[in-house]
Amino acid sequence: MKIAILGYGTVGSGVYEILTSSSSACASRFHVHAVLIRKNKPKTLPIMVDDIEDILSSDVEAVVEAMGGIEPAHTYIKKCLEHKKHVVTANKAVVAKYMREFTALAKENDVSFLFEASTGGGIPWIHAIENVKRIDSIRQFHGIFNGTSNYILDHMYKDNAEFSDILKKAQELGYAEADPSADIDGFDIQNKLQISASIAFECYIPNTFPVFGIRNVTKTDIEFFKEKNRILKLIATAAIHDDTYHCSIEPRLYPLGSLEASVPENFNLASIHGVTIGDLKFYGQGAGKLPTANAVIQDLIDIIEKKAHAVLLDKDLNYHPSQRPASYWIRTKSMPLEQLPNITVKVHAYLGHTYYFIQGITTDQMHAIMQNIQQEDKHAFMAAWEEDYD
Amino acid sequence: MKIAILGYGTVGSGVYEILTSSSSACASRFHVHAVLIRKNKPKTLPIMVDDIEDILSSDVEAVVEAMGGIEPAHTYIKKCLEHKKHVVTANKAVVAKYMREFTALAKENDVSFLFEASTGGGIPWIHAIENVKRIDSIRQFHGIFNGTSNYILDHMYKDNAEFSDILKKAQELGYAEADPSADIDGFDIQNKLQISASIAFECYIPNTFPVFGIRNVTKTDIEFFKEKNRILKLIATAAIHDDTYHCSIEPRLYPLGSLEASVPENFNLASIHGVTIGDLKFYGQGAGKLPTANAVIQDLIDIIEKKAHAVLLDKDLNYHPSQRPASYWIRTKSMPLEQLPNITVKVHAYLGHTYYFIQGITTDQMHAIMQNIQQEDKHAFMAAWEEDYD
Repeated sequence: MKIAILGYGTVGSGVYEILTSSSSACASRFHVHAVLIRKNKPKTLPIMVDDIEDILSSDVEAVVEAMGGIEPAHTYIKKCLEHKKHVVTANKAVVAKYMREFTALAKENDVSFLFEASTGGGIPWIHAIENVKRIDSIRQFHGIFNGTSNYILDHMYKDNAEFSDILKKAQELGYAEADPSADIDGFDIQNKLQISASIAFECYIPNTFPVFGIRNVTKTDIEFFKEKNRILKLIATAAIHDDTYHCSIEPRLYPLGSLEASVPENFNLASIHGVTIGDLKFYGQGAGKLPTANAVIQDLIDIIEKKAHAVLLDKDLNYHPSQRPASYWIRTKSMPLEQLPNITVKVHAYLGHTYYFIQGITTDQMHAIMQNIQQEDKHAFMAAWEEDYD
Repeated sequence: MKIAILGYGTVGSGVYEILTSSSSACASRFHVHAVLIRKNKPKTLPIMVDDIEDILSSDVEAVVEAMGGIEPAHTYIKKCLEHKKHVVTANKAVVAKYMREFTALAKENDVSFLFEASTGGGIPWIHAIENVKRIDSIRQFHGIFNGTSNYILDHMYKDNAEFSDILKKAQELGYAEADPSADIDGFDIQNKLQISASIAFECYIPNTFPVFGIRNVTKTDIEFFKEKNRILKLIATAAIHDDTYHCSIEPRLYPLGSLEASVPENFNLASIHGVTIGDLKFYGQGAGKLPTANAVIQDLIDIIEKKAHAVLLDKDLNYHPSQRPASYWIRTKSMPLEQLPNITVKVHAYLGHTYYFIQGITTDQMHAIMQNIQQEDKHAFMAAWEEDYD
């Protein structure tokens, strides 16, 4: 199959490398016809072009979009689909925002729009959701979907270190960006949760659910939780109930010895539960050049082998705040206890800090109260306590 | 698609239940035309028949073999393929023994022979191997492939209990057979390792590799290892190097906090490593009525959707003893130290037992010596020590 690659950054160059490597089992099935780079950038390969029209007017059958960001990725993907070229992308931001438009356009033009690499990197996660759905309807899923924040939490725990020191190490290793906000504030995961939940629940899920990241976690917090035999992970969850859904992103405390607690370094772990299949969990590299490129190429091979991917987004679901009582640990200097009627609160002092254990609150209530707390105490932190393990 | 089911035990009845349940997403795609049961058994469903000829002469397109055992499963599968019916099976014993014959016969008759459910139960493991192979060549894989033995080891550890007490509990729960030998001596895993390695390495792998089970493990052994922060798991491994392969099944000691050590109850965990994808791990129910039936139905849907499965067994590989130096703990009353030239042995006394820590030995040497030891001391036990974590 003749293909073009838009962008020659981490993912784009990874796709090119694998497709032109003699040691890859699939290289003979592909011919990379063109690589689009930005105007004024040096053309380091003879097949590099800087005008999307060169690709649109060519006979390439499939285009890999690996530019990242919203524009021009959005416009280029649209144009490629309109020119009846299959599109495969690793770009979670553009998929999360425009998946309805792209999916409709692909259908209209009888081509594929695939995005396995956008969520869970090398883990065949989108594929897993689609496969589980062939038999079971999916009621809920959850997971660790950001390698950078997992690296930070894992090393804070194992090295007894401060957040800022491990963040710096992650930046040196290339795991974290110079501006780490997307990873540590949960916005990277927000895109991935939108994509996963939309596919799982067959309804476009907007980015309007509660998100709380790990920016404020301290060495003392990790130590406090360690004494309780718990390990902190940044978790995305989604659930469907009748015609309503619930999503959230928040730090959660898992017991030592549980599978979630055991995910090391920058790995991801995605969990799904089906009525007949039970629990299925998938572990792997959620990011990185070659694992992400591998996921892109899996999609390309599916196109060659005509393996159908049914992306359905036609259900009508509404967001519904979670009704399930949950438990949280909060560290803050200004707990507005008057906001917590009928809620059990226990206070613990630890190394000069005050921790509150709150039971019988809902996720949405807790996130709303935390927003208020952060008006007064912008360094406050919260973590959900998984009661199931008690 | 019109199908027939051979056998109405755990798996057969599970397939029937899912395919006739209004809550399953795929029920409308199938019509169960006939269920074959043994002669003289009461026919509890109107579609039950007791003569394979009734199915061979019908217009069913696919047959699910869920009888288990070698005969008549082998003969019936052959006949179905010869009658140009697709065959899907969960029967690991017959697949491990006859996969070459079945695969050739399926090709000859232009139908599919699929066996996802034979290995890893509900985990899409065969599918994962096939997918990784589309891009990477597989150098090695390993995993926990037997839920019963994992249940026993997990509960011996967590409940501080003797092997015999937990085995009894597993039998009461229906996890273990009245004769538990297949599960605790590693023969169930042997079939699964043959199947997985044959698919991964594209060569039929016979059952001639070293196997050591968990029959002899004691409460004291688990305690001794617990003091070293290690957890015992029964692990199958396979590796390929040039035109030779190595396989083994043995108890291994993983550090607390590692993913393998964290697999609870009767779950399985299968791990694969590819050059570009890195580590991928798959966790789920390795057995049980509905998870196994789910895997059978995934194969049936692949047949409907014409998703190709390329089963290649045409490579010529030879078994080669592992050259890699490994470390083992041995508990025995009769260690033949003269058999261990150039090997480091340290002796530890623990609660009246003698444990030997052996370094720099190979897997095949250790298994051979253990066979000799068991001539004198049939209760001796060994466990591999994963040095990678030190």
